[in-house]
This record gives sequence, C-alpha cells and structure tokens, in this order.
Amino acid sequence: MYEAGDVRVETVPDARLIEPTDAVLTVSHASICGSDLWPYKTMEHSETGRRMGHEAIGVVEAVGADVRTMNIGDVLIMPFAYSDGTCVFCHEGLHTSCVHGGFFGTSDVDGAQAEAVRVPQADGTLVALPVGKDDALMPSLLTLSDVMGTGHHAAVAARVGPGKTVAVVGDGAVGLCGVIAAKRLGAEQIIIMGRHPDRIELAREFGATAVVSERGEEAAERVRELTDGFGVHSVLECVGLEQSELTAIEIARPGGAVGRVGVPQDETIPASQPAFYNNISVSGGPAPVRAYIEELLPDVLEGRIEPGRVFDRVVRIDEVPEGYRAMNEREALKVMIEF
Amino acid sequence: MYEAGDVRVETVPDARLIEPTDAVLTVSHASICGSDLWPYKTMEHSETGRRMGHEAIGVVEAVGADVRTMNIGDVLIMPFAYSDGTCVFCHEGLHTSCVHGGFFGTSDVDGAQAEAVRVPQADGTLVALPVGKDDALMPSLLTLSDVMGTGHHAAVAARVGPGKTVAVVGDGAVGLCGVIAAKRLGAEQIIIMGRHPDRIELAREFGATAVVSERGEEAAERVRELTDGFGVHSVLECVGLEQSELTAIEIARPGGAVGRVGVPQDETIPASQPAFYNNISVSGGPAPVRAYIEELLPDVLEGRIEPGRVFDRVVRIDEVPEGYRAMNEREALKVMIEF
Repeated sequence: MYEAGDVRVETVPDARLIEPTDAVLTVSHASICGSDLWPYKTMEHSETGRRMGHEAIGVVEAVGADVRTMNIGDVLIMPFAYSDGTCVFCHEGLHTSCVHGGFFGTSDVDGAQAEAVRVPQADGTLVALPVGKDDALMPSLLTLSDVMGTGHHAAVAARVGPGKTVAVVGDGAVGLCGVIAAKRLGAEQIIIMGRHPDRIELAREFGATAVVSERGEEAAERVRELTDGFGVHSVLECVGLEQSELTAIEIARPGGAVGRVGVPQDETIPASQPAFYNNISVSGGPAPVRAYIEELLPDVLEGRIEPGRVFDRVVRIDEVPEGYRAMNEREALKVMIEF
Repeated sequence: MYEAGDVRVETVPDARLIEPTDAVLTVSHASICGSDLWPYKTMEHSETGRRMGHEAIGVVEAVGADVRTMNIGDVLIMPFAYSDGTCVFCHEGLHTSCVHGGFFGTSDVDGAQAEAVRVPQADGTLVALPVGKDDALMPSLLTLSDVMGTGHHAAVAARVGPGKTVAVVGDGAVGLCGVIAAKRLGAEQIIIMGRHPDRIELAREFGATAVVSERGEEAAERVRELTDGFGVHSVLECVGLEQSELTAIEIARPGGAVGRVGVPQDETIPASQPAFYNNISVSGGPAPVRAYIEELLPDVLEGRIEPGRVFDRVVRIDEVPEGYRAMNEREALKVMIEF
C-alpha cells in the first residue's frame, strides 16, 4: 500500500530466513482484515510502500537452525502477531505483548498478502494443522489467525458466560465472529447491532437472538427495552469509533463489561462518568489469538462453529487491490486470497 | 453547603420516618469525605443549600412499620448509599446500583453530617455492630461506611491478589485504605504514589513497600524501574483527575487492571490507545461498601486492619466548617465528627 486507496501487487525479493528462529512459509491462504481498511482510508503517501497482510495459513518452506517444532511441508496457521511462546506474557496467555514479539505487515516484518512470508519466532508463533492445505475447512481455519480469535477475545474481555445477555456492536467479520464466540460461551441472549441485511442474516444463523439497527441513543433505548430496562451484561465493541464506544458503554448494564477489539481511532474513551457510576469495566485490545487457537481449533475441525462463512469473496493475488476496494465499499464482508 | 467554601451549621426540622421501610438514626460518628471537597471547591450558590455527609455510625431512634432487622438502641453502620438488599443488583453485590437505592447527602435524602438522619431501605442498608458506640474501634468501624470499602473496591476492580504488584495513585484517605486492602489481599509489592510525608509514612505502616513522589511521565518511569520495566499488575486510581487516570494507565503492565474509585472529573478516559494496545482493563466506580462490610468487619474487630488511623482530626458539629477548611487545605487528612 502506497497511500490511501493505492494497493499494488509487486514482485519483491523472495522471503528468506534472517534469524535462526525464523521460518519461511509459502502462503496458501491469506485475507484482508477490517483493520487493513484504516490505512486504506487514511494512509499518507509513502515512497517505499507498506507490505500488507497479517492473516495466513501456509506451508513450511524453510526453517532456521533453532526451529524445533515443525518440518518442511507442514501446514500451519500464522496468527497476526508473532511471539516467542516463552516470555512472561506468553505464559500468561497475552502473546500480543510478547517481549520478543511484534506484528506482521509493519515496518518490522513483511506482510502476509504475499506468496511467501518470513515468520519470526516460528516455534512460538505457528500452530500446526492436522489437515491438508486444500481441506474444505480452510476458510474457517484461516479465521483463527485473527477474526475468530478476536471475536472470542471480545467475548472473554466482556466476561460472556452461561446465561449472560450480550450485545455485539458492529456487524463486520469480527462482530459476526463475536456472535459465534458469545453463543459458544453460553450467552442466553445475543443482540447484534448493525444494519446490513446480509450480515444480520448471517449473525442470526450464528446465534444472534435479536437485531438492533437503530443508532446512537435510539439504539441504546432499544437494547434496554430488550433487557428489562437494564442493558446487557456483556458488550463486544467491534468497531473502534467514538460513537460505537459510547453506545457500548450506554448499553452495558450496571456492573457489566465492555470488551473492545475494534482498533480505537480516538485518543480518549468516551462516557467516563456513566462508565464509572455504573461500575462498567472497559477492557480488551489486540487479541492474543495464538493463545486461543488450541481452544477454538477442535470446534472448527469438528464443525461446531463455522466462522469461515464470513468470507464472501475469494480473490487471487493480482485481484487484491480489487478486494480492498470491495471491502472498503462494503460490497464484500471479508475477502480471502487463495494462492 | 450553600456554595463553594460556604458550609454552615443550622437547625433544621428533626429527621423523621417517611416510608415504612425507613429508620431514623441518632448519629454518633460521621465524617467528611474527599468527595465532599469537590462541591466545596466548585459548588454554585444555592438558595436552599445542600445537606452534606454520607458516612456515619448511629443508634436506632425510630423504625418504620416494615423494618424487621433492628431494634431501638442498636448501633449500626450506615454505608454511603442506601439499598434494598433484595433487588437483582444487590444480589450481585452491586448495592450502589440498587433499583430502589440512592445516595445520602443528595436532593433525595438528607446528609449524615447531622445529629440525626433518615435512612431509607433500613433493612437493606444498615449493618449492626457488636460493640457499643463508645468503643475504641469506632474510627476504624466508621471507615467501613465509605473509605475502607472504597479502597477495597479499588483493589478488587484492579484484580489485586497474592503475589501481584500494585500501585496506588493518590495518598488521600481512600488511597491509604487502598494500601491496606492491597496488603490484605496478598499483594507482594505496593507502591504508593504521593508526596505528603505524613501520609507516605502512614502508607508505609499500612504496608506500602515503595514510594514514588514524582509526577507525570517521570512517575511512570519510576514505577517501571521498580517493576522490571513492565509496570504493575494492579493500579488503584484514587484521585479522579485526567492526569491521575493517565498515569494509572501508563504504569499498568500489559494485561493489567486499573480500578477507579476517584470520582472522575472529566468526560472522557485518557490514553484509549495505550490502554487498548496493552490490553489494560479500566473498571471501578462507586464502591458497594454494603457488600464489603461483612468481609471487612472481622478484620477491624480483631485488629488486623486499622483504617481508622486515617482520621487525624476530630471535631464537634459546630466545628464542621473548620473541618472542611482543614481538609481542603490539606492540613487534615480526614476529619471525624463526634456527637
């Protein structure tokens, strides 16, 4: 990406091992993330461009001398952050704060919307799959690299559990995965807040029990009507705008929790006083999806959850710019790249 | 209080029963709260004035027809909020969100810096004490009406537990009670952030293991130096200003928690993005001190904690205006009113 709206497919030097803890993956599947649309909307011009992409499944092509847990030809999931798996934060399950970690598609490490990608901290980062790269489950497995783990993180941060009432702010791919996560964790009532008919339909199939399409204060009133006037125990904030955070705090019940996974676009969190007087907790952040893969993988492999249904368009590498355009204009919910 | 700086002691009609669920207490001990200083600094002129005070111990003088759990002459603690004890929020331990509840010293209910006070929802609100009103433990018992329960709430919201590292932002009476609470919950390291020598000395006696007297970014650096560069697991935010909230978020370790009990003076919470990228949770609010009395009372009665040491001045009712002045000018840490 060279600037807002300018995504180009270019031939670059092959990905190669740099550190002995690296692996190089031949990417079989990648995707475009909602968070890729923030720079797509706002990025200033860059002479060198930025390598994009942080969600992938790939096949091991090369491993450094210190890599122990994988072999050439293995099929693995690449979470959107790399992590050593051994530091204090990884041990606490917060791999996105790994002391030797970082994020793909940044100035540190190249992006995964590419034929191949170098993966630092390969042993700590990558998770082997028990299926081949042509398996029909690939779309759902690919979501474990980000959106499904992120929706799950929102639900965990929002303290979803059996019998809880839940609202999901945002009907993008993460919000829809949040619906899956909330149902999976035993929520009794799941309100999806959004206004795109096809996404709402998918949310219902994933387990949403009610839809609120209003915005702002009207939306908050509708949620309160649906919850005996109190609001919900758990709010999954899957957008990151001031208005969506405000709504999230307004619809939380006293003592409730907001789990934020939408990358915040503002410097402050709104509604400090309502959050305070109602003892609402605001938490969340970049999801440690690496920590969640073991928990979610069996449910994907055994078909209990189907997060791959969020992909409604598949492109080849040369069509990636068109994929960005389609997602940005909301023609596509989420775009998968097959190689 | 008629306006900022203008506190008057006046003769008013006697407190009396209004609802059948009311009790009237003859107040034996009351206190001035740090939160009373916000209106003392900023209140606009009021023709009728505002009845102040929400922390008290008293003796039952009269009970309504529906009051079941107390007798005339009983000595009881009055938490700063009244609550029915039976609604869904009271059952969840969040008595400050009681559906029939409210706060003393507001337009609803008169204040407790008075010879007598009407207590709504008496059965749900008041907690009987097994000691007489002249017991030497009265100062510590009085703190269970607010500051000790509030410090405990900050610690609970900040997820303090065995082995955790803790910072307490603010060396007022609530912050000092937060130190007691953190030690009581098993914290390994407790950093008090403040700059008043006498308060810091008391914090050390309560269990603080380190002191940071710097402010702003310097303070954050000092805390990181004391914690292997990571910050603390738990921050007790006991001030409520933008700068103190910012510091609280800056010194929390990734995955850590900020428990807010300082009444927020701003409309937004600062540092949304740092809080997000580090997966820091921000929670807290008005403490459900009613919920905590049973837990904390044995420790006070058996002398394991001595929160009453935060009172460094005792006044009679006619000296209350002087008590406000002394607390506001930081001559006094916390003022008790004896009747």
